[in-house]
Amino acid sequence: MNSRGRKAVAVDPQIKSSNLKRLRRIEGQIRGLQKMVEEDRYCADILVQVSSVQEALRGVSQALLRNHLRHCATAAITSGKTAQRDVVLDELVELFAKFSR
Amino acid sequence: MNSRGRKAVAVDPQIKSSNLKRLRRIEGQIRGLQKMVEEDRYCADILVQVSSVQEALRGVSQALLRNHLRHCATAAITSGKTAQRDVVLDELVELFAKFSR
Amino acid sequence: MNSRGRKAVAVDPQIKSSNLKRLRRIEGQIRGLQKMVEEDRYCADILVQVSSVQEALRGVSQALLRNHLRHCATAAITSGKTAQRDVVLDELVELFAKFSR
Amino acid sequence: MNSRGRKAVAVDPQIKSSNLKRLRRIEGQIRGLQKMVEEDRYCADILVQVSSVQEALRGVSQALLRNHLRHCATAAITSGKTAQRDVVLDELVELFAKFSR
Repeated sequence: MNSRGRKAVAVDPQIKSSNLKRLRRIEGQIRGLQKMVEEDRYCADILVQVSSVQEALRGVSQALLRNHLRHCATAAITSGKTAQRDVVLDELVELFAKFSR
Repeated sequence: MNSRGRKAVAVDPQIKSSNLKRLRRIEGQIRGLQKMVEEDRYCADILVQVSSVQEALRGVSQALLRNHLRHCATAAITSGKTAQRDVVLDELVELFAKFSR
Repeated sequence: MNSRGRKAVAVDPQIKSSNLKRLRRIEGQIRGLQKMVEEDRYCADILVQVSSVQEALRGVSQALLRNHLRHCATAAITSGKTAQRDVVLDELVELFAKFSR
Repeated sequence: MNSRGRKAVAVDPQIKSSNLKRLRRIEGQIRGLQKMVEEDRYCADILVQVSSVQEALRGVSQALLRNHLRHCATAAITSGKTAQRDVVLDELVELFAKFSR
């Protein structure tokens, strides 16, 4: 239906469904955080929950990266098109920089 | 209304309202991520969004920590009760460890 | 000989000696990294070593923070001097931000 | 003389020399940290220096990753050998996990 935006070359079905499950759980955790903030809960307890969401997001990132490398990046690198390959390699370095902070 | 859980000693109203605003925006971003995953969007583009959620959560954490130090931790440290103070200091080291990974 | 720079209020002797030991080991690891780079070693193997140095530095940071909270921050917070206390609280938020990236 | 250990497929000379320069500077910073610890310098000031070393190490990591992707990973992925390619992809996911913590 909706559409804009680049598509993945391929997505492993089990990565997709486990990521969706994780993101729904994370959505619930975010609502839980809103409730904790509304109720003036002890800040250190809220911070522990934020840290748990961060950990869950790292799980999603790793699964996405695994899929990206296996499908999109591999396709670009083996395409024989230097420009396309370089875009993907630069993106990977960029992502690594974003996440390794 | 609801209740259980330790409470904050005090919460700066502007920290509370800006954190609630941020968490609602983050909830929207998480739903956006679910949509991207459902639509098989390009993994690198999804990863950039995950990184932006992580950044937003760091903003929430910093505001919570600021409030925690200013109110809860200061209260415990100036309470004159060594045991209470040590609990708070250990919690802070623990939180630092969780977040500095 | 030594001199300029602010001093710690107090340093736990075992934190000091274990940090010195850790920093000497880290210095050795950094020289090992130089050797690996000079020998054109496999990048992924070098990266694993860099990650191990980062982990070791996190250990040093945590010990420093523990000492800082227990001595310097506690002293400033219980000093009754609001300005001095606020400086220390702002420093802690700043440090948290630096490390939680 | 030098020897054991896997070698890089290729190393960009400017990446190699800038990484060596960075690692020598980092070695100096580590010795500076030892001195600060020996002199019981203010913990928050030491922590700022540790954070600056971590930042410098991230610079080294990014350069190594860039070289790794451009040479070693690209060679393995285009080699047509599935097993070899999968090893490199798994290593990349593993490295990402180590650094994105």
